[in-house]
Amino acid sequence: MSEALHTLEGWYCLHDFRAIDWNVWKSLSASERSRAEDELFSLLGKYQNTENEKQGSTAFYSVVGQKADFVFMHLRETLEELNELETEFNKSLFAQVTIPTYSYVSIVELGAYMAKPGSDPMQDPEIVARLKPILPKSKHICFYPMNKRREGNDNWYMLSVDERRNFMRSHGMIGRNYAGRIKQIITGSIGLDDWEWGVTLFADDALQFKKIVHEMRFDEVSARFGEFGDFYVGNLLDQSKMAAMLKL
Amino acid sequence: MSEALHTLEGWYCLHDFRAIDWNVWKSLSASERSRAEDELFSLLGKYQNTENEKQGSTAFYSVVGQKADFVFMHLRETLEELNELETEFNKSLFAQVTIPTYSYVSIVELGAYMAKPGSDPMQDPEIVARLKPILPKSKHICFYPMNKRREGNDNWYMLSVDERRNFMRSHGMIGRNYAGRIKQIITGSIGLDDWEWGVTLFADDALQFKKIVHEMRFDEVSARFGEFGDFYVGNLLDQSKMAAMLKL
Amino acid sequence: MSEALHTLEGWYCLHDFRAIDWNVWKSLSASERSRAEDELFSLLGKYQNTENEKQGSTAFYSVVGQKADFVFMHLRETLEELNELETEFNKSLFAQVTIPTYSYVSIVELGAYMAKPGSDPMQDPEIVARLKPILPKSKHICFYPMNKRREGNDNWYMLSVDERRNFMRSHGMIGRNYAGRIKQIITGSIGLDDWEWGVTLFADDALQFKKIVHEMRFDEVSARFGEFGDFYVGNLLDQSKMAAMLKL
Amino acid sequence: MSEALHTLEGWYCLHDFRAIDWNVWKSLSASERSRAEDELFSLLGKYQNTENEKQGSTAFYSVVGQKADFVFMHLRETLEELNELETEFNKSLFAQVTIPTYSYVSIVELGAYMAKPGSDPMQDPEIVARLKPILPKSKHICFYPMNKRREGNDNWYMLSVDERRNFMRSHGMIGRNYAGRIKQIITGSIGLDDWEWGVTLFADDALQFKKIVHEMRFDEVSARFGEFGDFYVGNLLDQSKMAAMLKL
Amino acid sequence: MSEALHTLEGWYCLHDFRAIDWNVWKSLSASERSRAEDELFSLLGKYQNTENEKQGSTAFYSVVGQKADFVFMHLRETLEELNELETEFNKSLFAQVTIPTYSYVSIVELGAYMAKPGSDPMQDPEIVARLKPILPKSKHICFYPMNKRREGNDNWYMLSVDERRNFMRSHGMIGRNYAGRIKQIITGSIGLDDWEWGVTLFADDALQFKKIVHEMRFDEVSARFGEFGDFYVGNLLDQSKMAAMLKL
Repeated sequence: MSEALHTLEGWYCLHDFRAIDWNVWKSLSASERSRAEDELFSLLGKYQNTENEKQGSTAFYSVVGQKADFVFMHLRETLEELNELETEFNKSLFAQVTIPTYSYVSIVELGAYMAKPGSDPMQDPEIVARLKPILPKSKHICFYPMNKRREGNDNWYMLSVDERRNFMRSHGMIGRNYAGRIKQIITGSIGLDDWEWGVTLFADDALQFKKIVHEMRFDEVSARFGEFGDFYVGNLLDQSKMAAMLKL
Repeated sequence: MSEALHTLEGWYCLHDFRAIDWNVWKSLSASERSRAEDELFSLLGKYQNTENEKQGSTAFYSVVGQKADFVFMHLRETLEELNELETEFNKSLFAQVTIPTYSYVSIVELGAYMAKPGSDPMQDPEIVARLKPILPKSKHICFYPMNKRREGNDNWYMLSVDERRNFMRSHGMIGRNYAGRIKQIITGSIGLDDWEWGVTLFADDALQFKKIVHEMRFDEVSARFGEFGDFYVGNLLDQSKMAAMLKL
Repeated sequence: MSEALHTLEGWYCLHDFRAIDWNVWKSLSASERSRAEDELFSLLGKYQNTENEKQGSTAFYSVVGQKADFVFMHLRETLEELNELETEFNKSLFAQVTIPTYSYVSIVELGAYMAKPGSDPMQDPEIVARLKPILPKSKHICFYPMNKRREGNDNWYMLSVDERRNFMRSHGMIGRNYAGRIKQIITGSIGLDDWEWGVTLFADDALQFKKIVHEMRFDEVSARFGEFGDFYVGNLLDQSKMAAMLKL
Repeated sequence: MSEALHTLEGWYCLHDFRAIDWNVWKSLSASERSRAEDELFSLLGKYQNTENEKQGSTAFYSVVGQKADFVFMHLRETLEELNELETEFNKSLFAQVTIPTYSYVSIVELGAYMAKPGSDPMQDPEIVARLKPILPKSKHICFYPMNKRREGNDNWYMLSVDERRNFMRSHGMIGRNYAGRIKQIITGSIGLDDWEWGVTLFADDALQFKKIVHEMRFDEVSARFGEFGDFYVGNLLDQSKMAAMLKL
Repeated sequence: MSEALHTLEGWYCLHDFRAIDWNVWKSLSASERSRAEDELFSLLGKYQNTENEKQGSTAFYSVVGQKADFVFMHLRETLEELNELETEFNKSLFAQVTIPTYSYVSIVELGAYMAKPGSDPMQDPEIVARLKPILPKSKHICFYPMNKRREGNDNWYMLSVDERRNFMRSHGMIGRNYAGRIKQIITGSIGLDDWEWGVTLFADDALQFKKIVHEMRFDEVSARFGEFGDFYVGNLLDQSKMAAMLKL
């Protein structure tokens, strides 16, 4: 077993993208709409309680463009809890006016490419905080899934540990230049969903998403080995913003 | 005919993924919902009887994320029986609240890369038990289809028998390290469905799915030759868990 | 014009895959269902008459899994007749409970790679019987479309006639080993549909589909040049089996 | 600017493929069906008038298989006229029973690979007739879009003008062998739709579609550089054939 | 960080493509249709006001073919404003008769490949005018997304800054030949949507779209590195043209 395989995992993660069926929303009576909102806000309250108790964390953002209207990014200790969150939402009245558009199942991951030898990372509170993070309330979110390429001479999985470690070190240094401007959560999804990783970025200035992804694309590890899925960007939501969005 | 073509086949296999149309479910009356559940549980009972009589086996799991809400993995002696299971389910009231999302047709397969020469494997009760297995009740399931690549220099089907046997031996040794943590059912689907194999993994710790698939990806046979379809993960269901899931 | 271009063509072919919308079927009254079945069986009778008069042939099979519930494979003298069959079916009451899921337009084809020079193959009754075949009533069907690859060094259409003839001879010899177990109808679809050929296999033992496609995949012509579409497998239907399938 | 870029363009072209929703058609009353047919036939009459006045041309064919039930191929002087044709059709009662399945926007094009130097082709009545053609009433139609490949060593757009001219000359000679059997309209769609060209073939014997596309595939320009989209084939329609098709 | 990464960004951009559901439109009463139009025209007026106040710009065009019926191209200062535009439109009565078909999120971008060293481009009013442009009212629009290829030897992101600058200079010179005939808005979407750039062209003669894209395709930067998404073309709309389009 290769040394580079040592990764650390924390909370499971579900990105749950949904569109609003505005025709259905408008077809509800005012009291039905009010009840649907109450149920939604009650769920938001429960998610907040879980976060307060450090049993998980949930981010709630709009999505710009037709791919979705909003996304929940849920972090929880187990796959069962994620499943229950989905089912609980699906039973709500508000869910009846939404259309599922995309979801992603993964688990918070720290690559151990830069782990200090001889230490137990799970005893390091900083690492645990990164594996079971409270998601930021930045103004914007960006999500995309990605793979490492396995084609001809550009086969990431045929590289030696040292080659991979060097590639990732250079990659990490670009990321460090964005500290303070971008917070990044890497979730691993090999064996869990269709891509190998999900990348979720948070920033108060959405332009930083473009800057970092653009800059990294010229880095050899992305240029030669990065394969990217669809990109989703959006804006922070909360109860009052959602109420404004839904107001007819 | 090449020696490596010797594979052994057992029961036919149908993975039947379904979403629940919650709007329809909620539109049913309480008595209709009750009847729908009764019909579903009656089918679960029939599947269990078949398993008790060693005429087949059925696994029943939820699916996390929007790809599906649950999956039946049916093993039966013939394609006709699988077809009848589908039709019987489709006629049930519960089926009316489900939406088919994906299915996969295959047959339990043992590669003969490591067969002992001169022996008849079908006389070996251990092999027969692997070809007609009773599916485990592990807490989690993982399913994905896959191909062996045929591209340029990475063409699995142009390798010699010895090259393929060596690749698979190394692959199998990784798998053996997960014995006790993961139970794996390989089903062949060349000529039966769109990929060449289906891989179904069972584990009590879902993280092991990520660990084994990640570790194998660095193995040359996966790194150079593995092509993977969509991944589905979920949690064990039974009558009481399903009743809880459906309770409004 | 290259010698290898000489192919022989017979009847046009339409594979028409359909799912049953069980919700609609169950919503019909018993008398409507009875009338829908009568109309379907009357069409089956017409297809049989056409076959009896050697003006065409129709195979009718179920499909296992969610891709479809059944398929008609129609052979007729002209494209116009295939069009009329479609339209006639579409006007029937039974068609209202079906959802078209896939279709394929092609024409029965014999490659002339092995034609005897100097003879007129259309004077050979055996060849005419293969170009305008009565489709078998085997217990199982398997259909898939395919292309010959044109990529980099694996470009079938850049090979010489001799290279192609040698590849196909080896391929044909594998096929001959399955004589008696598998009957194969090759239909050409270059210029008619999205792939270059449709392959329809008939067998009483469905496992033979897996065996032959697997064995052929190691043959260089498939390993290097074969590109495959979706695979459909199913079981023989007739009026009484269809009535059982539809019975609520 | 490269000499080979000289192409000549004539009428804009819209291929508009539609399926018939038979359930809706059957749900109309006899008088509604009659009015829907009248509106359709009135549109057909208008298209014929435009053709008589040499202001455009329209072909009307059925499509075999599930991809569509019929196609209009409209040639007009401007993109605005094509847009108006679409909108006018969409407002008709008949349009309510149709489902759009595919469309293609392009412009009749003559490559100038073989233009005589020093002459103004637009003064040549034969060339103008090919740029603004009256579409034939052949018994069959075949449509497919295509690209010239840009991959590795098979990059059409990196060839010299002379290489391209030589490839196209050989290609054109195959086409000339089909004169009298096939009429071909090439429409360019670079910058207008998703592929680079649309190819529309007309023939009284549909088998010729297969023969010419098959033969050309062995020509180096197709073998190495041709990428093909979906193929549509169908049969000539007119008012009486359409009435028969729609008759319940 | 590589010098070539210096790009300049202006307004965020949302392309919002929509089809009209003509069946729904026709099902509305005359007074509902009138109210729906009024709401739409009121939104058009608001977009015009924003443009008058130089707080953004909106282009409104039809789309030819089945991909959509019309497109809004909105430029605004923030992602939040784009989100609000979407939501405001979605709540309108007119939105109920439309079906979202495609959208694209990006930001107006100027590559700095040709920036004068030592100057601050944001102090140049001409550059600011290009970053926050008032969209033209040309008769035609053309939109397509694109990537720079990263495959084997054709990997744009592995080129040196000088190589990229030379490629882009040649590309820009072709574009300059179309000055006066085509106005081009490049919007960057790395990190924002699924492709790396959106290209929106405006012209009074739609044929120029074909001419420029065709000519550029022979330029090495497109021939070797350009990957193109779907192309949309359409005609200028305004209140009176839209009223004519919607008139039954």
